[in-house]
Amino acid sequence: MNAPFERPVRVRFSHCDPAGIVFFPQYLVMTNALVEDWFNEGLRIDYAQMIARRRVGLPIVKLDCEFSRPSQMGETIILTLNVIAVGRRSISIDIVGHCGGETRFRAKQVLVTTSFESGKSIDIPTDIASALARFAPQTESIEAHRS
Amino acid sequence: MNAPFERPVRVRFSHCDPAGIVFFPQYLVMTNALVEDWFNEGLRIDYAQMIARRRVGLPIVKLDCEFSRPSQMGETIILTLNVIAVGRRSISIDIVGHCGGETRFRAKQVLVTTSFESGKSIDIPTDIASALARFAPQTESIEAHRS
Amino acid sequence: MNAPFERPVRVRFSHCDPAGIVFFPQYLVMTNALVEDWFNEGLRIDYAQMIARRRVGLPIVKLDCEFSRPSQMGETIILTLNVIAVGRRSISIDIVGHCGGETRFRAKQVLVTTSFESGKSIDIPTDIASALARFAPQTESIEAHRS
Amino acid sequence: MNAPFERPVRVRFSHCDPAGIVFFPQYLVMTNALVEDWFNEGLRIDYAQMIARRRVGLPIVKLDCEFSRPSQMGETIILTLNVIAVGRRSISIDIVGHCGGETRFRAKQVLVTTSFESGKSIDIPTDIASALARFAPQTESIEAHRS
Repeated sequence: MNAPFERPVRVRFSHCDPAGIVFFPQYLVMTNALVEDWFNEGLRIDYAQMIARRRVGLPIVKLDCEFSRPSQMGETIILTLNVIAVGRRSISIDIVGHCGGETRFRAKQVLVTTSFESGKSIDIPTDIASALARFAPQTESIEAHRS
Repeated sequence: MNAPFERPVRVRFSHCDPAGIVFFPQYLVMTNALVEDWFNEGLRIDYAQMIARRRVGLPIVKLDCEFSRPSQMGETIILTLNVIAVGRRSISIDIVGHCGGETRFRAKQVLVTTSFESGKSIDIPTDIASALARFAPQTESIEAHRS
Repeated sequence: MNAPFERPVRVRFSHCDPAGIVFFPQYLVMTNALVEDWFNEGLRIDYAQMIARRRVGLPIVKLDCEFSRPSQMGETIILTLNVIAVGRRSISIDIVGHCGGETRFRAKQVLVTTSFESGKSIDIPTDIASALARFAPQTESIEAHRS
Repeated sequence: MNAPFERPVRVRFSHCDPAGIVFFPQYLVMTNALVEDWFNEGLRIDYAQMIARRRVGLPIVKLDCEFSRPSQMGETIILTLNVIAVGRRSISIDIVGHCGGETRFRAKQVLVTTSFESGKSIDIPTDIASALARFAPQTESIEAHRS
């Protein structure tokens, strides 16, 4: 079972372009904030501390998006995050933004746990791997094969 | 009496610069969102509709800021908005961002009601002027002198 | 023959995140500016006029990216744009960012010509279709089948 | 004599808001890039190295702006930087953006040399102070009184 993590985000003036709709890179700023909220509130891993103290980052290595319908200023988009797979050093997630029953965009992302010091990928730290296993138990089998 | 309008904002990864602190233009993106919230929730004027339907904007003509202390990722800044003065075509506001009893920045802004069609300033629309008078009654005297 | 369109972009402080590397949505802001330059200087179509006067936009409907290596502040990234395909209402492009012989990211994008007024897709305007045919003659065959 | 430092910047789609004009925080992103160029090309101080290697930053502590006329997508704004004063730990600059003989905005900024490690202000490093003295000789007298 893998309950999705959901958060609303209001479309702001600052998100919008001269057509009055969300400028697509702003959707990705929104998804970055969603991952932060998911870590803090879904996984119970302090994201700011992970970055600033532990010096572990989550750079994106792969991103596939579809932008199906434009979003207008003032709308509230519901962002839904599902975990697709958890590897030894990577987390694959699927984020959908919808509003009024209509899908606005979908973004599949692969994030890699990385040391800020070395700039290189590292194994997902144990506490984060455990939190991910609790959040998305179906990925335990992948985790079980890690050794 | 002029109750301030307050909203919290969490400092996001996307707000921060290579020093790990809020990049100052991001504070101004935050204050822009605060003005939106103030219109929607404080003044009960639909901001998105004002922009998109009524084609009335609020460009800033004057901005004076002090950035007294840096803000770190993960912190929650309390933004407080006070109305300083309401003119025939302009609104002067004072926004303070504080965290843990410490002032982080202050921004004084003068906004001018402007027609998107003509690109020129216009009188503050009546419903907005009334809402401002209710929100900040001390400015009624200024309003009274408008004719 | 399909000469790529190339432009350099310097990595700015404002592009970088707390890890001191380009925050990935900023790459997409860069590619948006590249498309602007390509229209203005490669295709000789006035991009600003297309947006503001002709009210024709180029929203993105599909985006596939790989971010292979981080980029540091102060580096100059060479952005290279190739046309993959031109349809009746869409343009598929492939943008690569490289630096010092190393690929930093690749972004495949499908852009759709859209009316700002109706919010709906429209046929690529004739002058833009002609400019695309001159820029990327191999797509003429696709264009030939348009009727 | 104090020759101003000038650079053009084209107004991009990504700078513009739903009114089709520059969103004001974007002007400040532009001025930040101008300061970078001024360091690299005017003062001949490697800005990226200053930030990333020397861990010296230039946070802004005071900002006073006037936005006198809107700027449209596609326009080229000429940004002009003048040094107003150089203190022991601060640099006061005046940046004007103009286009077609018309002033679009003016931003007075006070920047403070700061250690990334301690988060505290530090004396302007000697090489930077010398470069500033060469760039803006009238401030030498201020420098002379520093001891």
